[in-house]
Amino acid sequence: MAKKKGISGFPEWLPQEKRLEDEIIAKVKVIYESHGFTPIETPAVELLETLTSKGVVDKEIYALRRYAAEEGEVSDLGLHFDLTVPFARYVAEHLNDLVFPFKRYQLQKVWRGERPQKGRFREFYQFDVDIVARDVLPLACDAEVVTVLAKVLRAVGVGTPLLKVNNRKLLIGFYQGLGIEEGVIPKVVALIDKLDKLGEGEVTRLLSELPLTASQREEILAFAAPKLTHGEVEGYLKGVSFNAALAEEGAEELVTVLNLIPEGLREYVQVHLQIARGLDYYTGTIVESEIQEFPEFGSVGSGGRYNDLVSNYLSQRVPGVGVSFGLTRMMDLILRNSLLPLPAQSPAKALVAVMSEDVRIETESFAETLRERGVSCDVSARSPKLGKQIDYADKKGIPFVVFLGEEKAVKNIQTGEQTTFSSVDELMAVLEQG
Amino acid sequence: MAKKKGISGFPEWLPQEKRLEDEIIAKVKVIYESHGFTPIETPAVELLETLTSKGVVDKEIYALRRYAAEEGEVSDLGLHFDLTVPFARYVAEHLNDLVFPFKRYQLQKVWRGERPQKGRFREFYQFDVDIVARDVLPLACDAEVVTVLAKVLRAVGVGTPLLKVNNRKLLIGFYQGLGIEEGVIPKVVALIDKLDKLGEGEVTRLLSELPLTASQREEILAFAAPKLTHGEVEGYLKGVSFNAALAEEGAEELVTVLNLIPEGLREYVQVHLQIARGLDYYTGTIVESEIQEFPEFGSVGSGGRYNDLVSNYLSQRVPGVGVSFGLTRMMDLILRNSLLPLPAQSPAKALVAVMSEDVRIETESFAETLRERGVSCDVSARSPKLGKQIDYADKKGIPFVVFLGEEKAVKNIQTGEQTTFSSVDELMAVLEQG
Repeated sequence: MAKKKGISGFPEWLPQEKRLEDEIIAKVKVIYESHGFTPIETPAVELLETLTSKGVVDKEIYALRRYAAEEGEVSDLGLHFDLTVPFARYVAEHLNDLVFPFKRYQLQKVWRGERPQKGRFREFYQFDVDIVARDVLPLACDAEVVTVLAKVLRAVGVGTPLLKVNNRKLLIGFYQGLGIEEGVIPKVVALIDKLDKLGEGEVTRLLSELPLTASQREEILAFAAPKLTHGEVEGYLKGVSFNAALAEEGAEELVTVLNLIPEGLREYVQVHLQIARGLDYYTGTIVESEIQEFPEFGSVGSGGRYNDLVSNYLSQRVPGVGVSFGLTRMMDLILRNSLLPLPAQSPAKALVAVMSEDVRIETESFAETLRERGVSCDVSARSPKLGKQIDYADKKGIPFVVFLGEEKAVKNIQTGEQTTFSSVDELMAVLEQG
Repeated sequence: MAKKKGISGFPEWLPQEKRLEDEIIAKVKVIYESHGFTPIETPAVELLETLTSKGVVDKEIYALRRYAAEEGEVSDLGLHFDLTVPFARYVAEHLNDLVFPFKRYQLQKVWRGERPQKGRFREFYQFDVDIVARDVLPLACDAEVVTVLAKVLRAVGVGTPLLKVNNRKLLIGFYQGLGIEEGVIPKVVALIDKLDKLGEGEVTRLLSELPLTASQREEILAFAAPKLTHGEVEGYLKGVSFNAALAEEGAEELVTVLNLIPEGLREYVQVHLQIARGLDYYTGTIVESEIQEFPEFGSVGSGGRYNDLVSNYLSQRVPGVGVSFGLTRMMDLILRNSLLPLPAQSPAKALVAVMSEDVRIETESFAETLRERGVSCDVSARSPKLGKQIDYADKKGIPFVVFLGEEKAVKNIQTGEQTTFSSVDELMAVLEQG
C-alpha cells in the first residue's frame, strides 16, 4: 500500500480549518476590493529565465520536469517563489490592457524549493496588494497599502496588530549624513535589518568588521533604537538634524504617509527605525507587521515601495508599492494557539431527516424548497433511526434537524429544543433565529 | 531583457476576465455549500509514489526538482494531475477526523506535464464535488452530484446545459447478456466511449477486430444509439429484455437516480446509452455534460461512481460518487465566444475625486466613511484636472465619481447625470440606485 503521510512543509487543513481559512480570505477580499483593488491570477509556473532574471537566485526554486521526459529533454519551467516576480511579468505583458495606477490583489500559493526543515513551509499562500503607476506614484499609495494591511490584520481578529513602518531614504540618508561610504551602506542596512534576530551584541560585533568609526557605530545603533507611536513620529524627527538631503526627504515621506493613515488605525502603526528590510529593491516606505501578543512568531505581512517593477522587461519605469499578507503563516499562528473558534465541518444549516426511503423523493424536494430560500441543507443519505441522523448532524456541526413526519418539527441541536411547524415560513422563522 | 511572453498551455486572464471567473466561482461555491459540501484543499504536490500508485501513469505528470539540487539528489514530489488522487490520500490520511458520508468540494489547479500543443491546457482549474461513505453509499448521492452539476451549469448562464447520464452496470450487464467474453467487455466499453470522437464507421471497424459475432456488433451499436429524455427512460428500459442480472440492476439504478433529480432540472438531463467513460474505476452511474449550443466544444463537467477510493491506502472500503466541473474549460468557452459580458476592471463603485492635494486627508477620510457603509471606493492617487479623474473612472469601469468641492456632487458616468448631495445618506441613495 502507498504511503499516506502528509509531506513536511506542505500544510493541509481539516475541513473546519479550511472553512476558517475561507472565512479569512473572504474578509480580506472585501477589504482589498473596498479600496478598488482588482483580482488577478498568474499561472503557478514561470519560465526559469523569468524566475532567475535578476541574475541572483534569492529564493530556492522548484523546477518542473516532465515525469515522462525523454533523455536530453530540457525543462524551462519553474514554480513561482513569490507573487512579485509573476506580477512584474504580468504588468509588462499586459501593459496596454491595464489602466494605471493599476491596483491589484493576488491570492496564490508560492513554493520554495528548500530542503525539508522543521517549521518551514515549502508551499504557502501569499495574499498581496500592489499599486503600480506608469510614471509617478504618489505617497498616498504607500499610505493605502499600509492601511489595508492594518485593516486586514484587525479583521482577522487575533490579538492587536502592530505595523512597524520606516523609510529606506531616511535610513540611507542618515548613514550618508554620518559620512559612511556608499559601498558600505547596504551592508549596514542588512545588519540593522537583523537586529531583532541577532540581538544588539552580535550586530555590534558584525558592525565592527565594517570600515566604520566607533562613533559611526554608536550613532547607527542609537538611531535604530527608537520605537515611536504614531503621535510621536513628527516631533521626534523634527528634533534630529540630518546632514543629508535624502534623509530629510525620507523623514518628510514618512510623516506624509503616516498622516494619511485613517485615524481609527493609527493605534496599530508605529515607526521602528530599525526596520530596514533585507531586500535590495525597496527604495522608500517599508513596513513589517506582527501580532503584539505573539512577537516571537514574527512577521505576518510586510512590504514597501520599489522604484521599478518591470525594468527586466521594458525600458519604461513602473514604480510600485505593495504589501504581502502571509495567510498561511497567519493560519499557522491561529491553529497552533487555537486563537479562533473553528467553524462546523459542514456548511449546512439544516439536516432534513429521512423518515423512510418511501418518502425520499418528497424529502429531497422539501430540501430543494429550503435551498431556494437560501438555506444550505443536507439530506440524510440513508434513513436509519432518527437518533442516528441527529448524531450525524451533531458531529458535522449542522445546527438544525428537520423532521417531516405527520407532525412536522425542527430540532435545535445545541439547545435540544424542538418546535413544530406547519408551513415553510414558520420553519424559516425558527432557522433564522438559530 | 527577459522574455515576457505567456507560456503556451498556462492560461492567464486579464483583470475583467479574472473577475468573471471569480463571479462564477462564487456562484458554484454557493450551490455546493447549499447541499452541505464542505471545502477542502490539498497541497499542489504529492509524492510521486502516490501519483503513480495505480501502477499505470494515465496522465502526464510534472515532477519537481530543486533548482539548486546537488548531484544525485532524488526528487520524490510531483504536481497533482487531478483532484481525485489527492482526495483519496486526504480521506485515508484524515479518516478519523472526517464524518461520513463525507461531502467535500475542492477548487484547485491541476497540471498535466504534456508537450506544448495548441489548444491543450497544461494548467487548469477543476472544481470537484464528491461524496464518500465508509460502507454503503446510497443512490441518492449519485442523484445529488448530478443535481449539483446541473445547477452549476445552469447558474453559469451560457446556453442550455445537457447532462448525459448512463450506468456502467447497465452497459456491462447488457454485454454480458449478449454473451460477450468478460475479457473483451472493457475493450468494447472503451470503443463505445469513443463513438462521438471516432464516428460509427471507425468504431464498427475497430469492433470487427475484437472476437465478436456480427450480431453482437450490431446489438452493441444499436444499444448505444438511444438518446432519451428524462421522461422516456423508464418506459424505454422496461421494453428492453436483458439477459443478465447486472443489466437489470443497472437499469433500476439509472431510473432511481433520475427520479431523484429535482423537477426543475430534469429538462437538462438525458440518458445517452453510448456514454461509457474511459476510466476503469467507474462502476455505476456515469455522467458527462456539454452546453447544447456548443456540442463540438465537448465536456464541461463529468464524473461517476466508483466502488472504492482508498484501496491504495486502507483495507476498508470507501465507495464514492463525484463530478468535476471544468472551470477553466468553461472560461475558455465563454471567452472564445464572448458569451458573457465582462465585469469592470475595478471592483470600486465610486471614485472619490481629489480637488487638490490640500484636501487629500479629508478626501481619504470621506472615502473611509463610504467604505464603512459598504461602498467600495477608489480615491484618485493624484489630483489632475477633474476630466482626467473622470476618464480614469471611465476606463476602469467605476460607475460613479464623487466631487467634494464647495458644492458636493456625484456623477453617474454612464448617464452623465450629475446630482448634488448634502449628506452621506443622500449620496448613498444615489449610489444604491446606480
